[in-house]
Amino acid sequence: MTHETPAPATLSELAALVGGSLRGGTPDQPIHGVSSVADAGPTDITWVSGRSYLKSLADSRAGAVLISPSLGATPMPAILTADPEDAVRRVLTRFEVAHERPPPGIHPTAIIGAGAELAADVAIGPCARVGAAATIGPRTRIHAGVHLGAACRIGADCELWPNVFVADRCRVGDRVVIKPGAVIGTEGFGFIFREGEHRRVPQIGIVVIEDDVQIGANTCIDRAKFGATIIGRGTKIDNLVQIAHNCKIGPNCIMAGQVALAGSVRLGMGVILAGRAAVIDGMSVGDGAKIAVGSIAFKDIEPGGAYFGTPARPHIEFFRAMAAAQRVPDLIARIEELSKRMSELEAAMHDRKAD
Amino acid sequence: MTHETPAPATLSELAALVGGSLRGGTPDQPIHGVSSVADAGPTDITWVSGRSYLKSLADSRAGAVLISPSLGATPMPAILTADPEDAVRRVLTRFEVAHERPPPGIHPTAIIGAGAELAADVAIGPCARVGAAATIGPRTRIHAGVHLGAACRIGADCELWPNVFVADRCRVGDRVVIKPGAVIGTEGFGFIFREGEHRRVPQIGIVVIEDDVQIGANTCIDRAKFGATIIGRGTKIDNLVQIAHNCKIGPNCIMAGQVALAGSVRLGMGVILAGRAAVIDGMSVGDGAKIAVGSIAFKDIEPGGAYFGTPARPHIEFFRAMAAAQRVPDLIARIEELSKRMSELEAAMHDRKAD
Amino acid sequence: MTHETPAPATLSELAALVGGSLRGGTPDQPIHGVSSVADAGPTDITWVSGRSYLKSLADSRAGAVLISPSLGATPMPAILTADPEDAVRRVLTRFEVAHERPPPGIHPTAIIGAGAELAADVAIGPCARVGAAATIGPRTRIHAGVHLGAACRIGADCELWPNVFVADRCRVGDRVVIKPGAVIGTEGFGFIFREGEHRRVPQIGIVVIEDDVQIGANTCIDRAKFGATIIGRGTKIDNLVQIAHNCKIGPNCIMAGQVALAGSVRLGMGVILAGRAAVIDGMSVGDGAKIAVGSIAFKDIEPGGAYFGTPARPHIEFFRAMAAAQRVPDLIARIEELSKRMSELEAAMHDRKAD
Repeated sequence: MTHETPAPATLSELAALVGGSLRGGTPDQPIHGVSSVADAGPTDITWVSGRSYLKSLADSRAGAVLISPSLGATPMPAILTADPEDAVRRVLTRFEVAHERPPPGIHPTAIIGAGAELAADVAIGPCARVGAAATIGPRTRIHAGVHLGAACRIGADCELWPNVFVADRCRVGDRVVIKPGAVIGTEGFGFIFREGEHRRVPQIGIVVIEDDVQIGANTCIDRAKFGATIIGRGTKIDNLVQIAHNCKIGPNCIMAGQVALAGSVRLGMGVILAGRAAVIDGMSVGDGAKIAVGSIAFKDIEPGGAYFGTPARPHIEFFRAMAAAQRVPDLIARIEELSKRMSELEAAMHDRKAD
Repeated sequence: MTHETPAPATLSELAALVGGSLRGGTPDQPIHGVSSVADAGPTDITWVSGRSYLKSLADSRAGAVLISPSLGATPMPAILTADPEDAVRRVLTRFEVAHERPPPGIHPTAIIGAGAELAADVAIGPCARVGAAATIGPRTRIHAGVHLGAACRIGADCELWPNVFVADRCRVGDRVVIKPGAVIGTEGFGFIFREGEHRRVPQIGIVVIEDDVQIGANTCIDRAKFGATIIGRGTKIDNLVQIAHNCKIGPNCIMAGQVALAGSVRLGMGVILAGRAAVIDGMSVGDGAKIAVGSIAFKDIEPGGAYFGTPARPHIEFFRAMAAAQRVPDLIARIEELSKRMSELEAAMHDRKAD
Repeated sequence: MTHETPAPATLSELAALVGGSLRGGTPDQPIHGVSSVADAGPTDITWVSGRSYLKSLADSRAGAVLISPSLGATPMPAILTADPEDAVRRVLTRFEVAHERPPPGIHPTAIIGAGAELAADVAIGPCARVGAAATIGPRTRIHAGVHLGAACRIGADCELWPNVFVADRCRVGDRVVIKPGAVIGTEGFGFIFREGEHRRVPQIGIVVIEDDVQIGANTCIDRAKFGATIIGRGTKIDNLVQIAHNCKIGPNCIMAGQVALAGSVRLGMGVILAGRAAVIDGMSVGDGAKIAVGSIAFKDIEPGGAYFGTPARPHIEFFRAMAAAQRVPDLIARIEELSKRMSELEAAMHDRKAD
C-alpha cells in the first residue's frame, strides 16, 4: 500500500546498499529513517558531508552516521563510504514509499482520441484526455485530468501528474516527469502591433522535451513560433518557471523555482540558473555557467563563469562593484576633508603672497 | 442562490453590526453596498481611516461614512466607530454573497479510495479524488478536480478549490483555504550530480499545514526531503508563491504574490514578505521582520526590522546607500574641481620656489 | 484533422496572401513552411526585416524571402512587401494547423447549472462546470475541466483552455482567450490584523475582462474588494502573471511573463511591461510607458517614457546612475592621489613657513 510506513532496515542492509563498511554497532541494529544531525533520533541514520559538520555529531542522538573514513572517529556506529552524499540518496530510496498513481489500464472516465496508440502497461487516470493520433510509450503513467493534445508523442516510463497540459504535436522523451499543473506547448507570446491592435502571430512550432527531463509544478513552456522549443536531455526544471517560445536548452541544465527565459534564449550544457534567475530574449548562456539567485542576464554569458546581479556580471566584477559602492559614504567624507584642507592651503598661500 | 444581489441594509443595521453609533441620517436609510470615497454613490457607504482622507469627503456622493468620532464633522450621515477599517470588514461581510460550492455529499463522478474516512457534511465535488486511507474532517468542502493523495489528513471546515493537488501523507489543519491550482507536497527539487547525470534525491518527508492557513492560487509548496515542510497557524500566502522543501514557517506570517523561499528557510512569527520578496536557502528570518517588495535576503534577518534591496539590508542602510549612490555624479564634479585647484596651487608653489 | 501537416503553398499563393509582388522564381514553386534565415531550407520561406539582416541572406538556403523592395537584390526569389513582419504573420497563419478543441455541444460529463444560458454552437468539454445562471455567447469553446462560477457572463467566440477557473459573477468579453490553468476572480489578498489574527476582508467585487484580451497559462487575476478588477480591451497577458485586486488595466497593454501588479494599480493605454516587471500597490502608469525586464515601479510612472531598474527610473537617469557607479573605483584612486599631493603641498608649505 502506498500509505504505509516503510519496513525498518538494518545497519548491515544499509551498508550493503551504499557499498560501505560498518564500523561499530551491530549488523542487525534497526534503522527506521533518515534525519539531519540535529533532528535524528536513536533509530535514525544521519550523515556528515564535511569536516565542518563533524563537531555537531557530539551532540547528535543519531543511531548511526554515513561518513567518509577520512573524517575519523564518531560517537555512534558509522557506515564508512567515500561519497556520503550519494549514500544518503541511496538510503532515502530505501525508505521511500511508492506514491499513489493510476494502475495500468485506461480509467473508464478517460477519453482516448481516434487513432491514439498506447503501448503496454500504460496507465491513464480518471478524466484524462489523450488526443487523436497521440502515442504513449510503455509503462508511462498519465494521472487524472491530464490533457494530451492531438498527435503528441510521449515516451516510455514517463509520469505526468494531475492536470498537466501538453499541447498538440509536442514530443516528450523517455523517463520524463512532469509535475501537477505544468503547461507545455501553449502558443508563444507573439503579437505585432498594427492599425491600433496587437495582432496574434501564429506559433506553428512545437515543444520537444528530451529524455530524463523533470518539469516542476505549474511551470509553463511555450511552443515555438516555428521549429521547436527544446529542453535538453537530463535537464531539471523546478516549479513556476517560465520558458518562452523558441528557447533551446542544452542537456543537464538546472533551473530552480521561478526562473524565466525570454524568447529564443539558448543555454549550453550543464548551465545552472539559481532561483528566480532570468535571461532576456535572444541571449546565449555558455556551457557550465551559473547565474545567481534573482540575477538577470542582459547579455550573452561566457561558459563556465559565475554571474551575479542585474544586469548579471561576472562574480568578481559584481563583488568589486558592491565593495566600491559601500565606500561612497567614506569618499564623501574624504572629499569634504580634502576640500577643507585645500581651502586652508589656498588661504595660507594667499596670506604668504600678501606678505 | 449564490448569484443573487444581497438585500440592502439600513444604516441602523450597519451601526449595530459594527458596534458604532449613528450620527445624522435616518435609521432606515437604505445602503446597497460599499465603495471608495471617490466612487461611492448615494446608496453606498464609504469609510475614512485617517485625517488625510477627510478632505476628499467634501466631494464624495457617498450616502454614509464609517469614521472615527475623533475626526469631526462629515458632510453625510456617519457611523462613528473607533476602528473604521475593521468596521469596513464587517460591512463587507454583510454584503458578501456566498460563492458556489459543492453541496455536502459525494458527487457520483468523484473517486474515493479504499479506507478513506469522510466526516459529517463533507462535500466532494465532481471528478475529485480522495486517496486510500485519507481522512477529511467535518464540513470540509473539496471542489471539483481536487486530488488528495493516499493517507492525507484534511481537517474540519476547510475549503479546497478546484484542481488543488495535495500529495500523499500531507496534513492540513482546520479552517484552511487552498485556492485553485495550488500544488502541495510534490517532491522537493533535490538532485545530486554524479557520473554525468543529475540523480534524483528522494523526498520522503511531507507538508504540514496548520490551522487557519490560506494558500493562494497556483502556489507550490514542496514536501520535505525528510521530516516536514511546515506552514504555521494563521499564515496567509498569496498566489504564485514558491516554497521549497523543508521550510519552516511560523504562525501569522504574510507572503504576498510571487514570494519565493528556497530550501530550509525558517520564518519566525508574524514575518511579512511583500510581493516577490525572497529568501535564499537555509536562512532564518526573525519574528516580525518585514522584507520589502522584490527584495532578496541572502543572510539571516534580525527580528523586527524592515529590510530593503537585493541583497536585503536594514531600511536605514538601504536608504543611506541609495542616497550615497545618488551623490556620485556630484562627487565626480567635486573631484574635478579639487584637482584643478590642486594643480593651480602646485603651480603657484612652484612659482614661489622659483622666486 | 488537427494533427495533419498543412498542405504546401506556392509562391504566387503567398504573394497574393500578403498583398506582395513576386520577384524571381516561378509562381508555382512549392513552399512547405516558414523558418529563420539561418535555419530555412529550400522549401521554406524566410524574411528579412531590416538592412542589418541582409548580409546573412547570402548564406541562407531558404527557397524564398519576404522583404521590403527598398532593400535591393536577394540571392533567392523574393516576395516584395512594404511590411515583411506582418507578411510573416500572414504566412504563418497559412501554415497553422487548427488545434484540437471540443466540438460544439455539451459533453455528457460536463455539468451545467440551473438557469445557465448557452448560445448557439457553444462547446463544453469533458468535466467542465458551468455555474447556475451563467451565460455563454455564441461559438465560445470551453475546454475540459474548466470551472465557470455562478452568474458568470462569457462573451462570443472565446476560448477557455483546460482547467481555467473563472469565479462567480465575473464577466469576460468577446474573442477572449484564456490559457490552461489561469485563475480569474479568486478573492483578493485582503487581511486586517486584529487581536492576534489576520482577519479576512471579504472581496465582494468581480473581475471584468474586456473584448480581445488574452490571458496566459497559470496567470492569476484577483477579484476586487468592491467594484471590479478590470482588464482593458485588447490587452495581452503572458504566463504566470499576478494581478491583484482592484487593478484597472487600460486597453492594448502588454504584460510579459511573470509580471506582477499589486493592489489597485492603474495602467493607461498601450503600457508595455516587459518580463517580470512589477508595480507596487496604488501606483499609476501613464499611457504608452514601458517598464523594462525585472524593473519594479515604486512611484507613479509618466506617460510615454521608458523606465529601468528597481526602483524604476527614467531610461536616461538609470543609465547615468549605472555609468556613475562604474566610475567609483576610479574616484577612489583619484582621491588617493589628491590626498597624497595635498600632503606634499602641506609639507612644502610648512617647510616654507619654517624658512
